[in-house]
Amino acid sequence: MFAHNKRLQYTVRVNEPNPGLANLMLEQFGGPQGELAAAMRYFTQAVSEDDPGRKDMLFDIATEELSHLEVIGHIVAMLNKGAKGQLAEAVDREADLYRAIQGAGNDSHVTQVLYGGGSPLVNSAGVPWTAAYIDTIGEPTADLRSNIAAEARAKIVYERLISLTDDPGVKEALGFLMTREIAHQKSFEKALYAIEPSFPPGKLAGDPKFASVYFNMSQGEGDHRGSWNQGEQWEYVEDRDQQCAVDGGDGNASVNLSGDQMSVVKQAAMRTASNPQTDPTTGAELGAAADSLAMQRPGQESQPSGKPLH
Amino acid sequence: MFAHNKRLQYTVRVNEPNPGLANLMLEQFGGPQGELAAAMRYFTQAVSEDDPGRKDMLFDIATEELSHLEVIGHIVAMLNKGAKGQLAEAVDREADLYRAIQGAGNDSHVTQVLYGGGSPLVNSAGVPWTAAYIDTIGEPTADLRSNIAAEARAKIVYERLISLTDDPGVKEALGFLMTREIAHQKSFEKALYAIEPSFPPGKLAGDPKFASVYFNMSQGEGDHRGSWNQGEQWEYVEDRDQQCAVDGGDGNASVNLSGDQMSVVKQAAMRTASNPQTDPTTGAELGAAADSLAMQRPGQESQPSGKPLH
Amino acid sequence: MFAHNKRLQYTVRVNEPNPGLANLMLEQFGGPQGELAAAMRYFTQAVSEDDPGRKDMLFDIATEELSHLEVIGHIVAMLNKGAKGQLAEAVDREADLYRAIQGAGNDSHVTQVLYGGGSPLVNSAGVPWTAAYIDTIGEPTADLRSNIAAEARAKIVYERLISLTDDPGVKEALGFLMTREIAHQKSFEKALYAIEPSFPPGKLAGDPKFASVYFNMSQGEGDHRGSWNQGEQWEYVEDRDQQCAVDGGDGNASVNLSGDQMSVVKQAAMRTASNPQTDPTTGAELGAAADSLAMQRPGQESQPSGKPLH
Amino acid sequence: MFAHNKRLQYTVRVNEPNPGLANLMLEQFGGPQGELAAAMRYFTQAVSEDDPGRKDMLFDIATEELSHLEVIGHIVAMLNKGAKGQLAEAVDREADLYRAIQGAGNDSHVTQVLYGGGSPLVNSAGVPWTAAYIDTIGEPTADLRSNIAAEARAKIVYERLISLTDDPGVKEALGFLMTREIAHQKSFEKALYAIEPSFPPGKLAGDPKFASVYFNMSQGEGDHRGSWNQGEQWEYVEDRDQQCAVDGGDGNASVNLSGDQMSVVKQAAMRTASNPQTDPTTGAELGAAADSLAMQRPGQESQPSGKPLH
Amino acid sequence: MFAHNKRLQYTVRVNEPNPGLANLMLEQFGGPQGELAAAMRYFTQAVSEDDPGRKDMLFDIATEELSHLEVIGHIVAMLNKGAKGQLAEAVDREADLYRAIQGAGNDSHVTQVLYGGGSPLVNSAGVPWTAAYIDTIGEPTADLRSNIAAEARAKIVYERLISLTDDPGVKEALGFLMTREIAHQKSFEKALYAIEPSFPPGKLAGDPKFASVYFNMSQGEGDHRGSWNQGEQWEYVEDRDQQCAVDGGDGNASVNLSGDQMSVVKQAAMRTASNPQTDPTTGAELGAAADSLAMQRPGQESQPSGKPLH
Amino acid sequence: MFAHNKRLQYTVRVNEPNPGLANLMLEQFGGPQGELAAAMRYFTQAVSEDDPGRKDMLFDIATEELSHLEVIGHIVAMLNKGAKGQLAEAVDREADLYRAIQGAGNDSHVTQVLYGGGSPLVNSAGVPWTAAYIDTIGEPTADLRSNIAAEARAKIVYERLISLTDDPGVKEALGFLMTREIAHQKSFEKALYAIEPSFPPGKLAGDPKFASVYFNMSQGEGDHRGSWNQGEQWEYVEDRDQQCAVDGGDGNASVNLSGDQMSVVKQAAMRTASNPQTDPTTGAELGAAADSLAMQRPGQESQPSGKPLH
Repeated sequence: MFAHNKRLQYTVRVNEPNPGLANLMLEQFGGPQGELAAAMRYFTQAVSEDDPGRKDMLFDIATEELSHLEVIGHIVAMLNKGAKGQLAEAVDREADLYRAIQGAGNDSHVTQVLYGGGSPLVNSAGVPWTAAYIDTIGEPTADLRSNIAAEARAKIVYERLISLTDDPGVKEALGFLMTREIAHQKSFEKALYAIEPSFPPGKLAGDPKFASVYFNMSQGEGDHRGSWNQGEQWEYVEDRDQQCAVDGGDGNASVNLSGDQMSVVKQAAMRTASNPQTDPTTGAELGAAADSLAMQRPGQESQPSGKPLH
Repeated sequence: MFAHNKRLQYTVRVNEPNPGLANLMLEQFGGPQGELAAAMRYFTQAVSEDDPGRKDMLFDIATEELSHLEVIGHIVAMLNKGAKGQLAEAVDREADLYRAIQGAGNDSHVTQVLYGGGSPLVNSAGVPWTAAYIDTIGEPTADLRSNIAAEARAKIVYERLISLTDDPGVKEALGFLMTREIAHQKSFEKALYAIEPSFPPGKLAGDPKFASVYFNMSQGEGDHRGSWNQGEQWEYVEDRDQQCAVDGGDGNASVNLSGDQMSVVKQAAMRTASNPQTDPTTGAELGAAADSLAMQRPGQESQPSGKPLH
Repeated sequence: MFAHNKRLQYTVRVNEPNPGLANLMLEQFGGPQGELAAAMRYFTQAVSEDDPGRKDMLFDIATEELSHLEVIGHIVAMLNKGAKGQLAEAVDREADLYRAIQGAGNDSHVTQVLYGGGSPLVNSAGVPWTAAYIDTIGEPTADLRSNIAAEARAKIVYERLISLTDDPGVKEALGFLMTREIAHQKSFEKALYAIEPSFPPGKLAGDPKFASVYFNMSQGEGDHRGSWNQGEQWEYVEDRDQQCAVDGGDGNASVNLSGDQMSVVKQAAMRTASNPQTDPTTGAELGAAADSLAMQRPGQESQPSGKPLH
Repeated sequence: MFAHNKRLQYTVRVNEPNPGLANLMLEQFGGPQGELAAAMRYFTQAVSEDDPGRKDMLFDIATEELSHLEVIGHIVAMLNKGAKGQLAEAVDREADLYRAIQGAGNDSHVTQVLYGGGSPLVNSAGVPWTAAYIDTIGEPTADLRSNIAAEARAKIVYERLISLTDDPGVKEALGFLMTREIAHQKSFEKALYAIEPSFPPGKLAGDPKFASVYFNMSQGEGDHRGSWNQGEQWEYVEDRDQQCAVDGGDGNASVNLSGDQMSVVKQAAMRTASNPQTDPTTGAELGAAADSLAMQRPGQESQPSGKPLH
Repeated sequence: MFAHNKRLQYTVRVNEPNPGLANLMLEQFGGPQGELAAAMRYFTQAVSEDDPGRKDMLFDIATEELSHLEVIGHIVAMLNKGAKGQLAEAVDREADLYRAIQGAGNDSHVTQVLYGGGSPLVNSAGVPWTAAYIDTIGEPTADLRSNIAAEARAKIVYERLISLTDDPGVKEALGFLMTREIAHQKSFEKALYAIEPSFPPGKLAGDPKFASVYFNMSQGEGDHRGSWNQGEQWEYVEDRDQQCAVDGGDGNASVNLSGDQMSVVKQAAMRTASNPQTDPTTGAELGAAADSLAMQRPGQESQPSGKPLH
Repeated sequence: MFAHNKRLQYTVRVNEPNPGLANLMLEQFGGPQGELAAAMRYFTQAVSEDDPGRKDMLFDIATEELSHLEVIGHIVAMLNKGAKGQLAEAVDREADLYRAIQGAGNDSHVTQVLYGGGSPLVNSAGVPWTAAYIDTIGEPTADLRSNIAAEARAKIVYERLISLTDDPGVKEALGFLMTREIAHQKSFEKALYAIEPSFPPGKLAGDPKFASVYFNMSQGEGDHRGSWNQGEQWEYVEDRDQQCAVDGGDGNASVNLSGDQMSVVKQAAMRTASNPQTDPTTGAELGAAADSLAMQRPGQESQPSGKPLH
């Protein structure tokens, strides 16, 4: 069960309203790398987790991320406060209000006009938060890696936001939030490596014929080697023919169909065949300008419909 | 530039059509952990990458994932082939076709009725693929971790699909695809650790006051300790008061408003205040059944509108 | 700040696993009327709220909804537990596992194959939760009505789920959750009517010419009257002509353009005009079967291209 | 069946083109609180409604909302007209056109570049309209409350748009549209309260033990009381222990598993346990900078891999 | 199988960075009419195609579109390069960086803050790419028409982008990409008209009673005739009565219910009927201001609750 | 302005309820090829159209599609009617109701549990309708082609639904709706070809160097020729080298950076370089099982961290 304490985890002191900055801060409120994504990622993992240590840790961190959501939400709310009042009371003349909304810039008009200067669960583009951002699949050797990566990403977005403002109170609170992502990453790393083995993830071993092959699929000036495709642990394949049909087969796809199935498949194919033997007049040709470069080529005569292809 | 060779990277031999199984396979075609997500994740990173070694690796792997998308797509197409023909030609009596579509189960009706037995970019629930699945943010110490996690997830979903079918050709092709995720994870790991340092991600250091703190936010029977919150590298905080306002402030949010801003904010607040001094009759009370348990409590009399609260 | 207590708000006792039922329960976990939607709706309102009473109430109820999310999540997790283990360990033969997944029915295959038998933030169709479900706009006379309606909807979906299961522990927990929606609705009603006035919402009065008019826009057998369009408070307009251009104007849309603007608009219109004076041969006609009913009508001759229309 | 009359319901007179303002107006065309959402909300309810009075009313209002969609669409089209022509004909030099598009501000570039200066079904952020905005669930005591709330929200967004422009023709048409939301709300209120009883919504009564309880879940300075949680109709619970496991149980979640299910669940848990007894070296530690504050604490020595935790 | 060559299909020479222009270019990278949509549209069709000629063509063009995706992606990357470096290294003072991001305009802040100056699969509004953009249904007479239309749309969006920049290298590369859409449209037209017949699409003929009827559903000043509704091939119906119930029935919807079904439907209808015989007091009336124009009409007295309607 | 007549455009006579079939019918109600998509596609084009003939035609057809939406909606409502009553009144024992919902199959559980047996704007997978389905871009030579394609797709989905049911009343109504798509396609074709020229779409001509080239990008067994890539109007390029850098340049992407920009770009690249000179120990290696095939290769020794690559 959750309980709420009216004090924030970190005091928020905003120097002055700035709806444009508020809108950028939404990235960490309702954006893909933001605190709701973090909280829900760990919360849903915690609910289904059977390992008692991880379950506890996931609830600990989920709860803290909810508390961070509250901190960043209040930063947004403070930055929007003046504009929210002006819009609600419409104290300015209309043209002034329009200029104010245009002037605040980026997508802050959405926060103002649609959300009334609140703290909506959208990113800085106004795109609503979606659970498609959460990549939990219910296997800890994958989910912990996802969590590690998610913390890394959140740390970076905070770093960028810190670079964008010189308001000392905002900077300080963001610095706290950023630092906590580092701490969380460390916890998830410990929990991952405490699973033995943690690689390869899951239960099935890979096929040894293909687990150490590196296919050089992109070729040309700019080919590089490094430990990711070089050294005794790698078999490096650059012959294009050896990259195809690596099972040694013909590289085609096939299925066994019953006689009935085969005949309807053939019937459908025949009914809808594009006949390669004719050169039909097309709608594009009907609609082409008389002198259209797009349709004509030097020496080409105007064509009757459906002539045989020679 | 891309080029295409008509042979698949792995030969696909499907034993017999099975539209229900085809639909499950869509997870790795148009699902969040599938091959399009993989290909686009690495491709978009490659395009913006400035490090020559990583750029080359990312194009190599993106190109291979596109080739995997083609393999899993052909598995889907082969499993759907019979049903596709029957639908297109409607050779069965209507009731039989309805039963066939119902009987194939899970969400295969969507693949049949909407997509004509093709290979659409949706997951096994029929949800269209979205770039919201891609979590690239343009910083390699985060993106490589995201890639590692993505490979781990894809490996697991393949493992599950392998567990679901006894068609030997499908199993074998899935085994190849699963194994390649392992190999790709290894490459991304090498590239990550070849950045020195790779932790913490990005440029800013964390605040040492908070980088090694573990807040025990979820308490009660079931609290556990492990290397993720225990040991000399952690400061473990379980006192609820010490989890609040960790900066030492009052835990409130504040902003400095100009006099004008302050007065409109106050005006808006007054206009929309919920008056705590009265007990208004509500719409729910108007609409409540005479004997409604939901509205009444023992000893409660019927109420006049808007009476003062005592 | 949030804190978490390991005990649930309501004890969850599930009689036996049932992945099909688990999937239906997802409606109240990650569905549009579910507990995440409720929690986030009230939480985001609380963050931006300036009225101290409402702010407190919104945090109270948001926190309880998070606790409900945890309850319903554990119902899902318990119902999925057996299937989750079987999938992770693949102890059944493949065909059996396939049959089990098909047999569990509705969309439970998505929960199994993609989410590993966990508790994902999707609805029972597998559609990821989206903040588009939240309709908060930052004005209490609207938001409180939205909250009242949201509680009513959540109550109904719980009512339906209760009708679907005879597992006594599930029924009892759902009954608790359903009842709390009733209690929350009552609180929101009180808070709404404690704003004086609360109707019309917002600040601007309506135009008295149009605020009490009812337009009978749908006519024919089945027209009905009731207090919603009848009585002395309504002006009932059924003459079609009086429903049009009610301002007394010509009912057209116009804009003043500068001379330059006017000339480019005209130029664009001329360039792309569909000439009503000719009867062009079309692509459809090119492609029509010789005896196509769709293209021909009795007495119609085959047509040369682009003939004038008579 | 629908019929269309070429005259608008309200004459639209726009003073001059303004693509920035046009984009803001899209909120009421393709935004969540806009006219398409209204029209489709009532139309879909009407189609499935069995009560003849409500069915008639829903078709009346749905049809009027479609007519409003047409009015707001024409406002958008008129405001965009000049810019649309300039883009289509590219009469300006490129740099001028770029400056014009940048200068129009907010998200109007999307309307111009992607939608050609038309009237797309997106909101002012460019987010496509989605039926996720519609919260109809097929029970009138809920749906009518949803409709009341939707009208209140739409009224407010119109109020904001009116505050943003001083174009008298735009203002007047918006005033009409805003007023009609008030009238519609009144009709829906009448229809709701004409259901007896209308509260609690639906068929099942709540559990009297929990229907009048208010849990004070958010505590600390700022706790407030009002009619929403105070008075004889409320039981106010603030003891944290009494908020947990309110059924009197242990607050845990449980399910009865068969022996086979139990053994695979245990097997999965053991295979993936995070071992709390060791302190493994992690990837983060491998990648940490030598002097990283994030990894080290005073007195900490560099660590060998996987050492036991003391 | 795909292979990648490090040279682009078209050399990209960008004159100078411009993050605002970069963001507009995203329309053709991750926008609905962009190159990913094109590539995936044709690729998925190719995978399921049974006609050998079309299958080959679809793979040819899909592969070229992937190569175009790479070209437009590199245009975006080059235009963003300077800003990306500045953000990553935060070399500017914060206020300068904020001003730079605000000044670049349109939605480029999203590309910078969320995506790090990369090339994300979003459109110029920041909306993530979705497979909902792809309209393939698995029937060539429909899909080829969809492809023709898609090429036409892509051609136009390129035309608009060309109009927006005077950077000669960008203009030239966009000109190439635009031209290729013309060439692809020509190929798809040929393949469509090489199916005989190609109209009407699919297998079933239309009902001759309705295949040549034009219903004049929108009436009033502005009615126009042209070859689309005029000439001997059309039957033009403008009598409103003849547009309704064109089958000659009563225009109602009906279903045969069993006795049991009928009785529960009636029971539900009775329970939820909106009683037209009373005029209930509503929540809106409770909350209305004493002098509210919205609730009162001249001569109207204040009303007691639930009075009968006269 | 719209008006509504209570009679449907086509009488709907459903033989008996069938919630499974109802759910499939949703494809044409709230699916991508359904009637809402059609109505909104033409309606939004009509609103912004400047050509009087097309504007009139678009309103005519949009209005008819709205009337079709009403017809298909009533088919859904009739097929769901019995189940809707049973759910609302819960007259069956719970287990029976659960079995009934499971037995109805495909995704009908969503329509029942979430939407109460109504007619929601979702497709047969439960995916909410989105304006991302509409591809209007505001240029008639593209939009009319999009409309032609949309009508072709809708015709096919109706054809499939007709094949799935033997209810004569449903079949007949679907046959009417299908036929009208044929008629609408004919109108749009006429309007397209009445624009002279209609190809290439838009205003800019293509570059003659590239407008008639066909790149054989997919090579191998299965290459085919036809009028789409053969004949005097095509230049066929199959040499891989001639497909690259077709402008004659080096095929690279470049941008001119200022000195300051260059130096930050370099700084960022250096800071985040993946060093190709070392072979770092990775997290995967830390976590690999001792005997893991995935990490080891024959002859490979266990590795110390960060050894130089030889």
